[in-house]
Amino acid sequence: MNVVLNGLSRHYRTVSFDAATNAVVLIEQRMLPHQFQLVQTADYRETAAAIRDMIVRGAGAIGATAAYGLAQGVRAFRGSGLAAFEKHVARVFQALADARPTAVDPLNAMRGVLAEMQAGETVAERQALALAAAEEFAHENVNNCRAIGQQGARLIRHGMTVLTHCNAGWLAFVDIGTATAPLYAAQARGKRFRVICDETRPRCQGSSLTAWELAQQGIEHRVIADNAAGHLMQRGEIDLVIVGSDRVLGRTGEVANKIGTYTKAVLAHRHKIPFYVAIPLSTIDWTLESGEAIPIEERDADEVLCADGLLLHPQSSTRNPQSGRRVQIRVANPTSRALNPGFDVTPPELITAIITPLGLFKPKDLWPHLHSLTSQSAARNPGRT
Amino acid sequence: MNVVLNGLSRHYRTVSFDAATNAVVLIEQRMLPHQFQLVQTADYRETAAAIRDMIVRGAGAIGATAAYGLAQGVRAFRGSGLAAFEKHVARVFQALADARPTAVDPLNAMRGVLAEMQAGETVAERQALALAAAEEFAHENVNNCRAIGQQGARLIRHGMTVLTHCNAGWLAFVDIGTATAPLYAAQARGKRFRVICDETRPRCQGSSLTAWELAQQGIEHRVIADNAAGHLMQRGEIDLVIVGSDRVLGRTGEVANKIGTYTKAVLAHRHKIPFYVAIPLSTIDWTLESGEAIPIEERDADEVLCADGLLLHPQSSTRNPQSGRRVQIRVANPTSRALNPGFDVTPPELITAIITPLGLFKPKDLWPHLHSLTSQSAARNPGRT
Repeated sequence: MNVVLNGLSRHYRTVSFDAATNAVVLIEQRMLPHQFQLVQTADYRETAAAIRDMIVRGAGAIGATAAYGLAQGVRAFRGSGLAAFEKHVARVFQALADARPTAVDPLNAMRGVLAEMQAGETVAERQALALAAAEEFAHENVNNCRAIGQQGARLIRHGMTVLTHCNAGWLAFVDIGTATAPLYAAQARGKRFRVICDETRPRCQGSSLTAWELAQQGIEHRVIADNAAGHLMQRGEIDLVIVGSDRVLGRTGEVANKIGTYTKAVLAHRHKIPFYVAIPLSTIDWTLESGEAIPIEERDADEVLCADGLLLHPQSSTRNPQSGRRVQIRVANPTSRALNPGFDVTPPELITAIITPLGLFKPKDLWPHLHSLTSQSAARNPGRT
Repeated sequence: MNVVLNGLSRHYRTVSFDAATNAVVLIEQRMLPHQFQLVQTADYRETAAAIRDMIVRGAGAIGATAAYGLAQGVRAFRGSGLAAFEKHVARVFQALADARPTAVDPLNAMRGVLAEMQAGETVAERQALALAAAEEFAHENVNNCRAIGQQGARLIRHGMTVLTHCNAGWLAFVDIGTATAPLYAAQARGKRFRVICDETRPRCQGSSLTAWELAQQGIEHRVIADNAAGHLMQRGEIDLVIVGSDRVLGRTGEVANKIGTYTKAVLAHRHKIPFYVAIPLSTIDWTLESGEAIPIEERDADEVLCADGLLLHPQSSTRNPQSGRRVQIRVANPTSRALNPGFDVTPPELITAIITPLGLFKPKDLWPHLHSLTSQSAARNPGRT
């Protein structure tokens, strides 16, 4: 894999494709927030490795990466005959599907590409269609996020302070993101506001990824410990909350998202602060009948017991770490164990509205308004995990 | 300062005095939870340095350290005549008072020792009285915590899961602690239960100090990210919450404590989980008329942006770190800033009761039941900060 850019910039998509070199181009997310690197994969095997090794994460982003990876593999075919070609295609598909075996997004994205390819009669036609379909998938992902931004921008008023939790930003999608989309759209309309980023322990996606994104976008923001949100709300210092979601139940309006989301919703409700959830339609699960049926992943205890970041020299200023060495430290008592539920479920009565590309809906109104529209197309552009 | 013990043990007080060597003996809290060290100070100057450099922290603990430090200095007097002695005493007092200039506890503790010394007519008598008074202060501190334990132990039932926040344990007092006192008393009565320790970012006193204490005591416990408490309550996995406090307003029943306490109280109230605050009477502030008047310290942003712990070798198991090197890391985006309020205020309607050495009281009942009893003696044994 090649490092093609090494340094900060705000002008790159999380996932893109360079047709000239037949390469998938990715932001190396494991280096963030301490270093910005664009990498490009030489072939589909490297693309599969990038998904597996979490160079790219977030369902929208890994879906697009798999779609591009399939096109990349398909375009590299140098044999002859459709039969040999289809055998090659199946091999590429499998390699990319195996990269994150429990994720549904790469599968859905690649199935869309395969379906589009069938319209071609020759190898060359199918190769061209594969890339066009992958580009279309990425384009649709961006368009959905942009539409969320347009729908949500009017919620952001000049001078507001907006709280967000975890990262549902452009790093989790092809671009723009979901919870961040209304912020970026409001900024584009010239509004000035301030964002509070929950640190979001244990993995600190708020203080590392969201804070990094907002810094790139030039949006004023502050990081807080997750413990501080209640106090700030009590003091009237939060006007609005926007979060993303991993799964919204279309039948009940319940919202599964990163651990801690429920707590912020309870606090916002107590303080009568509007609480919004921004999602593409593909995040809606129309099948489950109760939030209790959502499996809550119990993650590795070491996430809670440890932390990772850039090693600071004892003498250096912490604002300008001189060391480039990323390390892990043990924070907790060495003989203690941890519980680490990864997600929680927020009930509909705590949610002001769900921001979707088609408009804002009360959680209980998703079914009557959107079910017939979206249950067929939902597989095309899944939300993040 | 001498290291007198290097290794784990559960049989030491946070602060004690060795009359034979005229030394204050302290648990070196800056090394916890990764290393247990007892240190002893050679003279009152070293004792002042130990307070200043936070080898010992927690108001109960630094009060006792100052009282012992005064006795230590007084006992080292080698001159002759009461006048020279009193001059020496004033010098010792000032050195210890200057160690943490904003803390009220060392001052109150030392004033108590000075008052007791006045009964002596000779230097030798006053020296003996100084040590007796310091021992009496420490003894009273322990007795108060023990009484809190007796009052609170009946709240802990067999098989319960108890949530606690931050550290109001024996490390913050001479022994036993406040929020932990009912746990230790219940354990002594043969009850078995489980404790959930909020990590308590940004300084992680829960995952480092409280988890360490509980491990020493052999109490089953798990550390969680602060984000996880709401989810566990929602799932019915928390039966009771006990926290300490830095200041309880006797007039209103409002409770100031470590940032995040308010959030847990709001969650507990929603889920009808009893929420208790354990304090010595000296923690009650009878003067302030509103929680809004409590100054909320805005602490160093680096606490939120960074973390500290034991450096893990990339190859080592995180459960058995091979490295003994304590380091600081930058977790957050390097160009982002933070807000870091250190404390919050919980209103009385969210608090089931205040556990005191004299019994359990509804927050609003503190004034009618305790004001006349305690407003005079409060200065003798202040709570932690």
